[in-house]
Amino acid sequence: MPQLVNGVWEKGDIAASEIKGGAFHREPTRFRDWITPDGAPDENGRPTLPASAGRYHLYVSYLCPWASRTLIVRALKGLEGVIGMSAAEPVLGEDGWVYGEEQDGGPRVGRFRHHYSLYTASDPTYTGKVSVPVLWDREEGRIVNNESADIIRILNSAFDGLTGNRLDLYPKPLRPEIDRWNELVYTTVNNGVYRCGFAKSQASYDEAFEALFATLDRLEERLSASRYLAGEHLTEADWRLFVTLVRFDAAYHGAFKCNLRRIEDYPNLSAYLRELYQWPGIRDTVKIDDIKAGYYTNPAINPTLIVPKGPALDFDRPHDRDRLPGKGIWQRA
Amino acid sequence: MPQLVNGVWEKGDIAASEIKGGAFHREPTRFRDWITPDGAPDENGRPTLPASAGRYHLYVSYLCPWASRTLIVRALKGLEGVIGMSAAEPVLGEDGWVYGEEQDGGPRVGRFRHHYSLYTASDPTYTGKVSVPVLWDREEGRIVNNESADIIRILNSAFDGLTGNRLDLYPKPLRPEIDRWNELVYTTVNNGVYRCGFAKSQASYDEAFEALFATLDRLEERLSASRYLAGEHLTEADWRLFVTLVRFDAAYHGAFKCNLRRIEDYPNLSAYLRELYQWPGIRDTVKIDDIKAGYYTNPAINPTLIVPKGPALDFDRPHDRDRLPGKGIWQRA
Repeated sequence: MPQLVNGVWEKGDIAASEIKGGAFHREPTRFRDWITPDGAPDENGRPTLPASAGRYHLYVSYLCPWASRTLIVRALKGLEGVIGMSAAEPVLGEDGWVYGEEQDGGPRVGRFRHHYSLYTASDPTYTGKVSVPVLWDREEGRIVNNESADIIRILNSAFDGLTGNRLDLYPKPLRPEIDRWNELVYTTVNNGVYRCGFAKSQASYDEAFEALFATLDRLEERLSASRYLAGEHLTEADWRLFVTLVRFDAAYHGAFKCNLRRIEDYPNLSAYLRELYQWPGIRDTVKIDDIKAGYYTNPAINPTLIVPKGPALDFDRPHDRDRLPGKGIWQRA
Repeated sequence: MPQLVNGVWEKGDIAASEIKGGAFHREPTRFRDWITPDGAPDENGRPTLPASAGRYHLYVSYLCPWASRTLIVRALKGLEGVIGMSAAEPVLGEDGWVYGEEQDGGPRVGRFRHHYSLYTASDPTYTGKVSVPVLWDREEGRIVNNESADIIRILNSAFDGLTGNRLDLYPKPLRPEIDRWNELVYTTVNNGVYRCGFAKSQASYDEAFEALFATLDRLEERLSASRYLAGEHLTEADWRLFVTLVRFDAAYHGAFKCNLRRIEDYPNLSAYLRELYQWPGIRDTVKIDDIKAGYYTNPAINPTLIVPKGPALDFDRPHDRDRLPGKGIWQRA
């Protein structure tokens, strides 16, 4: 993958730095600061930044499932007026993520076009992967956090005082159950599709493929009796799964060779996908053409760069999930 | 494509010689001699070779739909004891089609390992594509015919005196109807999938894709009311279509980006496919693992060379085509 080395942009084979012994290993994210309602130190005594309207900004790509998580929580939590958003071009070229128009990084950074500028502004000697999403502090001109799992929890909890939104996607009583599903889904599904698609050896691919479809079979069974992953409440576990499911038939099935079955072939999983897609605010976070363009213009897996016209998709059909008891998203007391 | 130039094997980009303006154009076949029961000149006065047991041999690959046509007609016409068969390795490498074990080309040629040897033996200065199937004359040590459309008609008509088989896949009264379907199916389906998969421009791909699925829709409609393409009789038009349909979900859908729908998504087309697959003698001509290995080890479209483990296929499920009137294969008087 093209990446920063000591703050210098180095062009190279996409994902090459993440291949070990033929298998794909995702590089860990590095910026992990937190935002809280009042900026008080967290329970471990670490400093945090205070919630504030207009100060923080999300840099995303509609291609990226990790970025989409944050767009989804931003929408569900009604944060559009509080946290701005910029979307990079869907096609990852040799300059990495690029913005079609120059972005305003705030007073300390000014205007920029390359996503990697956010990284060098935050750390002039940064070495590593340059990824979306980024939660950005316009005031200090630096990355707050580039780990999507953190960002969705920050958005879930820090800004309620500004918005009055009381939805809780990670309610305390359900956390053990949510964590359990997150662990399985992250390893074998969210990252599992990448382990299939970016594998450089047949054995690594085969292993990831087996694990992926074993989990999909297990999820199908779970969702045949449970409205959502953690039970009757729609939680972050569902949205973390959703971002991969909604890309699956359009991109992973073909471009990443995740082709034992389509999501469409799983009656419960596909109906569940439709319910989530139809949830208010969600469909606007899903741009199928960007998704296809992004995954299929990676020369390491598709040298012709031709983007398939299919498949025919219809996430607007009835989902019939009302047959199972559900309480929607948890409301804070 | 690696090819012969003045009888010398030239390695190169697969299919490059068949790309014009971003579109794939299949090179015409060159050897077009004919075999008749008695070797008498044909109705146009051209010389023919006489039918004979053990003299002719088929060189094929299980990967190749064109070669599979000839295997199918060989099976239906009960020619296994009359015409021998050798199958090349499914993976097309820089040496082109290669046989796992040396083949016996007969007294005038001896033993060989490369399929192109058949071409240089037939024409020491041959320039062009080296393809399967080849119908070979062991006695004269040369290619009789390398056009699959011709070969299936030769097998359909020349050897009945030796086998007593009276089946006719191209009966006179049905020829106009068969020719009409063949024309449409060849252009948009048999060759259409290659025009999708080997397109070097998005516009060429898009055009081939539209034509392919327009025809599949039309075939679905035809087969909702007609047991076979030409009506109540199973003819060569059906077998020419079959070889593409049976490869579609396993190979063309992913490797060639023919992914608007799968054949499995067409109720009539998929049931028709199952009926043909289940026809006596046919399933042995279909080797799905060879097909996947062959299409997915073309670096021009799949540089990782990883072969997908999916899709799950089941051509043995009931086909329910008996609901439509059918008379099987035409019997000669």
